[in-house]
Amino acid sequence: MSHAFSLAIDAMGGDNAPDIVLDGLELAAERHPQARFLLVGDETRIGGLLARRPRAAKACMIRHAPDVISAEMKPTAALRQGRNSSMRIAIDSVAARESAGVVSAGNTGALMALAKIVVKSLPEIDRPALAAIMPSARGDVVMLDLGANVACDARNLVEFAVMGETFARAVLGLTTPSFGLLNVGSEELKGDDRVRAAADILRESHIGAGFHGFVEGHDITAGTVDVVVTDGFTGNVALKTGEGALKLMRDLLRQVFTSSVPARLGYLLARPALDRLREWMDPRRYNGAILLGLNGVVVKSHGGTDALGFAHAVDVAMDMVTHHFNDRIREGLSRLSTVPAAPLAPARP
Amino acid sequence: MSHAFSLAIDAMGGDNAPDIVLDGLELAAERHPQARFLLVGDETRIGGLLARRPRAAKACMIRHAPDVISAEMKPTAALRQGRNSSMRIAIDSVAARESAGVVSAGNTGALMALAKIVVKSLPEIDRPALAAIMPSARGDVVMLDLGANVACDARNLVEFAVMGETFARAVLGLTTPSFGLLNVGSEELKGDDRVRAAADILRESHIGAGFHGFVEGHDITAGTVDVVVTDGFTGNVALKTGEGALKLMRDLLRQVFTSSVPARLGYLLARPALDRLREWMDPRRYNGAILLGLNGVVVKSHGGTDALGFAHAVDVAMDMVTHHFNDRIREGLSRLSTVPAAPLAPARP
Repeated sequence: MSHAFSLAIDAMGGDNAPDIVLDGLELAAERHPQARFLLVGDETRIGGLLARRPRAAKACMIRHAPDVISAEMKPTAALRQGRNSSMRIAIDSVAARESAGVVSAGNTGALMALAKIVVKSLPEIDRPALAAIMPSARGDVVMLDLGANVACDARNLVEFAVMGETFARAVLGLTTPSFGLLNVGSEELKGDDRVRAAADILRESHIGAGFHGFVEGHDITAGTVDVVVTDGFTGNVALKTGEGALKLMRDLLRQVFTSSVPARLGYLLARPALDRLREWMDPRRYNGAILLGLNGVVVKSHGGTDALGFAHAVDVAMDMVTHHFNDRIREGLSRLSTVPAAPLAPARP
Repeated sequence: MSHAFSLAIDAMGGDNAPDIVLDGLELAAERHPQARFLLVGDETRIGGLLARRPRAAKACMIRHAPDVISAEMKPTAALRQGRNSSMRIAIDSVAARESAGVVSAGNTGALMALAKIVVKSLPEIDRPALAAIMPSARGDVVMLDLGANVACDARNLVEFAVMGETFARAVLGLTTPSFGLLNVGSEELKGDDRVRAAADILRESHIGAGFHGFVEGHDITAGTVDVVVTDGFTGNVALKTGEGALKLMRDLLRQVFTSSVPARLGYLLARPALDRLREWMDPRRYNGAILLGLNGVVVKSHGGTDALGFAHAVDVAMDMVTHHFNDRIREGLSRLSTVPAAPLAPARP
């Protein structure tokens, strides 16, 4: 099925919208010359900005949206009152099959709620999940769920594994990605009924060959597996804990390198190598959280990112559109005949 | 109540026992001149080592134990077959009220199981929890549970909060420690029934003034609160994820500083400041996981630590003994009249 637009873009979402969105699209249009974007937002404002960005201007069509969903708006309010918002009109375009996907840097809760209700889940999926790519000692790692579902049962975890494995093949380009279930220990008897039941199903499934078994918190950054699968509560806490630890280390290093004249000089000498490290870990290179399991591609850019970061979120969405990601997920899930429809273990409350 | 020994020491637990245990005690005996230790293990081996450590020799009495619980032994096997092990005999001494506490660098699962069954929980406590102290941008932070209970209900979380708050007062010496419940967001409506019910009770409790509300993963290393309270599944994953992120950063910095001649030179210039940072983050300074909520002080040293790290685990245990930590926990829990005996929300499966 072909769409009129590759992606609908919420031009008004994020801290510095619409300017950085337009700057990001100027970069994205260069990287994806075939892409067509539906740019949704305040016609007058984005029209003026677009006129000064020649590549984006060629790739975009503007659709007017009079309202904006603010960062503070509750998801329920966004659903009720946001019908004329840029985010909603962009999402409507995906639901109407006019656009293959949507990218927004706006309110995360509102985007997840609107996407689930308007775009809807794939029929094979019980619950969509939020995924992201992050750096590890052995290359990029996909982790999910990062907070879309605080309560998950064994069936949800199995579905997340199938979606994550497919994502690693489609977007990271791996032939046989390895994946693991996050747990408190790596031995088979560790953890709760939920993770043990999910492990039993995965071991017997068509993707069983790539199943590493249980992994622990330190395995995420060690890159022990390509895909780390967990519930949204644990995944959200783990993601933010890891980010917090890296931030602590960066702040302490900044203090170290300004603590004395020799330390400052040392920094200058090591700077090219330190800059390469900073570039490698640049959060903009990992911008773009992906809501998997919907009838369309939905990517959330960080609200505070810049043009480079927004362009990266567009890259991720374009990869998923180009590789017919959702068709591949549906194919994968249809092979999971062993997953019973009812939860195998009670969901986390 | 006074005990014949401040602490019983499992002389045979850990990767380099009994040597590093004896070296650690030599340091500990200097720091705690009033302490008396019951040293449990192979009489011949530890007798010879003790003879060459004059301070430890004065502070220790040896009790023979013919067996050792190996690192691989399952907790159930340790319970059945470990009756003549150094770990078990040390724990028996706490249960008999002969020693106020125990320190072991041996098998964690066995230590937790033996301590729970032999030393037993305080009558006011439903489940003991594993706690540790860790560095943050704003000083030391206590986190619990780190894996003793993968399934926790609201009542467990409330008890963990009382124990953690008491620990921060007794061991970190804070007058009014702040504490928070780990969640996927800081707003009151975030998370599951379990954390919301626990938050409602804590807000109304006698320690309510110190309750910060919900905290997120990045708040752990930011030092937003003095005590981070969570279930054992999430806590274990968060702890190991944070450690993993710091390890990744250390490994990458090592690569940076050996990547070129100028970078090596830069390292040498910044080295005094980098060494101070390394010292500040030294895992040995944070060695000693504490099993809280038992009829005695139980501290687990990391199995691979050295004498300095083992001595630090002894410091933590001695602080708890000196400050009558368990009496203070019991006092705090007796004031928690609002906690119903039955779980308020279903436990995580």
